[in-house]
Amino acid sequence: MRNLKFTVGYEGTEYVGWQRQSNGVSIQGCLEDTLAEIEGKPVTVVGAGRTDAGVHALGQVASVRLRHEIPPDALVRAVNARLPGDIRITNAEVVADSFHARFDATAKCYEYRLHHGEVVSPFLRRYVWHLRHHLDIARMMEAANVLVGEHDFAAFHASGGSARSSVRTLFRLTIHTSLAVCCPKMEPSHAETTVITVRGGGFLRHMVRVIVGTLVEVGRGRLDRQDVLRVLAEGDRRAAGPTAPPQGLVLTRVDYA
Amino acid sequence: MRNLKFTVGYEGTEYVGWQRQSNGVSIQGCLEDTLAEIEGKPVTVVGAGRTDAGVHALGQVASVRLRHEIPPDALVRAVNARLPGDIRITNAEVVADSFHARFDATAKCYEYRLHHGEVVSPFLRRYVWHLRHHLDIARMMEAANVLVGEHDFAAFHASGGSARSSVRTLFRLTIHTSLAVCCPKMEPSHAETTVITVRGGGFLRHMVRVIVGTLVEVGRGRLDRQDVLRVLAEGDRRAAGPTAPPQGLVLTRVDYA
Repeated sequence: MRNLKFTVGYEGTEYVGWQRQSNGVSIQGCLEDTLAEIEGKPVTVVGAGRTDAGVHALGQVASVRLRHEIPPDALVRAVNARLPGDIRITNAEVVADSFHARFDATAKCYEYRLHHGEVVSPFLRRYVWHLRHHLDIARMMEAANVLVGEHDFAAFHASGGSARSSVRTLFRLTIHTSLAVCCPKMEPSHAETTVITVRGGGFLRHMVRVIVGTLVEVGRGRLDRQDVLRVLAEGDRRAAGPTAPPQGLVLTRVDYA
Repeated sequence: MRNLKFTVGYEGTEYVGWQRQSNGVSIQGCLEDTLAEIEGKPVTVVGAGRTDAGVHALGQVASVRLRHEIPPDALVRAVNARLPGDIRITNAEVVADSFHARFDATAKCYEYRLHHGEVVSPFLRRYVWHLRHHLDIARMMEAANVLVGEHDFAAFHASGGSARSSVRTLFRLTIHTSLAVCCPKMEPSHAETTVITVRGGGFLRHMVRVIVGTLVEVGRGRLDRQDVLRVLAEGDRRAAGPTAPPQGLVLTRVDYA
């Protein structure tokens, strides 16, 4: 029995999220069904992060135990040939028996894309949150710094998560804005994009999206750095910003020690 | 009655092409239906280029005569609010009564994207032709030069077009290759992309796709510069390469005098 580590990219638009659910098709379900075909019996795929419905990934990591002796490269080809085109395994390797994609992860990186143009390119509409408001990026950066480090993020997550504690550590929270959008490009005047990048040891349910929603309130001038400090200290979800929509979010990388 | 010029972007994946057809939904049909709602009676939208099913556009140009006095900016907003998200008007302006989007066009630019990675990113699959073969780009460039200028492109188009002559002028034909793909990015090893850019006075049916299919045969070593010269001179469609699939193609710009 070998333990395999996969890197997985997906466009989450058509899925109920990473995790297998009764109400629709999940990424985990697609991978488990495809691998079960190859293995000849049911398998369990463990994902590093349980991304929400509509959230994307470039660097999701998953682990699975297989009896089948197929070489990892051939497995990648066989699995991709069976998966729908919006899910792709980009790497597979044999890892130590003890490796667990979720419990061994030491950090996760997410990117969130905001689009400020009058018109959203048809090519970007599945990957951005379209906001017509002008955002004060300097003001957002100031407030973002408040959230870096170890804090109780009680105000910054959805209820219904399974976590016992809401203390988490953010290693980095950066905001970049640019006129250049590629793949394919729109005219610059329509293409202003802001990317919020978050790296942390772990995240609560909807945590990145509530952080983004709160920073957008700051950028619009409805909250400021002091408000974010207060929200963080008081732990009241209603005082933070709204949950940003899922389609702007991408799980870009998972790190292991 | 005002004459309006639109710039239109669309993802062609779900459409039968630009032109209204009985067998499915077209871009022209969507625009005409939406504008007819605003105008209160049927309208005719003239497009600069009749893109095929599955072909995309960033800079398609269309003209339409409207009695309605709505300002162009408000018209853009009203039309975009009614259109599906995969079609977007990015600009509208009032032009001279004599302006005709198709007959007045002096040049059109197209880009075609090839993807050479082992795995196609879920985010690019709708916009590239996935080719696992290694391509000799220098060899392709040499052959591409043969096609620049005024030639009879009889070997480089599909039958069934309405054109009386197959003489056309290519102003430019360039090939760029790169490891960097954005929006969002994959790991570089999976991201090698070649972009073929064509600018010409006018194009025959499938002409860009046959040129791309032929250059790919050159890149794979199955044809060379001399073969392309011969195919051009002899005008035999069967001697050129296959028609490249539509999803790699984007109409990026239309120029007027």
